[in-house]
Amino acid sequence: MEALKERIRREGKVLPGNIIKVDGFLNHRVDCAFLGEIADEFARIFDVSQADVILTAEASGIALAAVCAYRWGKPMIFAKKAKSDNIEGGLYQSEIMSYTYNKKVTLLVSKQWLRPGSRVLIIDDFMARGEAARGLCELVSQAGCELLGVGIAVEKGFQGGGDRLREMGVNYHALAVIESAEPDHIEFRPE
Amino acid sequence: MEALKERIRREGKVLPGNIIKVDGFLNHRVDCAFLGEIADEFARIFDVSQADVILTAEASGIALAAVCAYRWGKPMIFAKKAKSDNIEGGLYQSEIMSYTYNKKVTLLVSKQWLRPGSRVLIIDDFMARGEAARGLCELVSQAGCELLGVGIAVEKGFQGGGDRLREMGVNYHALAVIESAEPDHIEFRPE
Repeated sequence: MEALKERIRREGKVLPGNIIKVDGFLNHRVDCAFLGEIADEFARIFDVSQADVILTAEASGIALAAVCAYRWGKPMIFAKKAKSDNIEGGLYQSEIMSYTYNKKVTLLVSKQWLRPGSRVLIIDDFMARGEAARGLCELVSQAGCELLGVGIAVEKGFQGGGDRLREMGVNYHALAVIESAEPDHIEFRPE
Repeated sequence: MEALKERIRREGKVLPGNIIKVDGFLNHRVDCAFLGEIADEFARIFDVSQADVILTAEASGIALAAVCAYRWGKPMIFAKKAKSDNIEGGLYQSEIMSYTYNKKVTLLVSKQWLRPGSRVLIIDDFMARGEAARGLCELVSQAGCELLGVGIAVEKGFQGGGDRLREMGVNYHALAVIESAEPDHIEFRPE
């Protein structure tokens, strides 16, 4: 998606440790109109009409998944990362490593809301080593749902998460795959 | 907002400890089309055209704030609840008590994105004792921004958070104020 790449080139910041910050439009201050354009691009790639529900992980995936779900007229479920007192009954759970916070976290979805047989499209803002997406796929599988696909806005291609999903045969698409990132130059993988 | 009250009556669950669960449409599985209706209701109450930015707190406020911001053509900022390695530079910070998780958390917003003089509308899904809203108001004040108002979808009126904001003279509105909640009956405050 050229407009997304252009945005990353213009506004992205590369920090030590291969951290690429796009928090001015994607995951802290969020350009919601632009999320609508991203949603339209996903809808060209995936047959979103087939989806029963859009699944993402808290917190930074929620804004993008919500705008996508709103535009597509679908419900959205976000997996929680901590057990609150307000979740009762059965839970699907998947343990993942969060490299952003450098600790293990458990993704949780109430069994009440992710029903067996549902067709699920996973949407997330960012993919690095792919832990969140792996955990979300695991929840889909635990729930006996059908995985329609995984759509990611920005993939850090050099960290391997996306390629692992591609090799597993998942219907996986990222709208901008960063091949290498230096403070003065971000290189994208050709489409 | 009658449609919201109706939804709470029909789908809400009251748990011991005055917990009211609306996670089937508001904050776990999210009915994004309905969030659009909530956004329209807020736009009847607040002059959203005056807002430069919509502010909320992660995680459960993000979906509603994103759909509102999308419909109103505004950017949205969500305050983070933990320091990640990816936030650099100055931060506005406000410590609040999270009763959902029974611990203190710090709301964080990068100074880069909440600019002095901006007109801010705070949107959140739920108000109990009002800690999140209080923290968000504090961030707005620290940043030298103008607070246009605070819009909440569901207020637990009997926990006092909303009344405190009303007494402070904040332009505060909740679309459904629950006055009392028993497993078999939810009573709303008259509008």
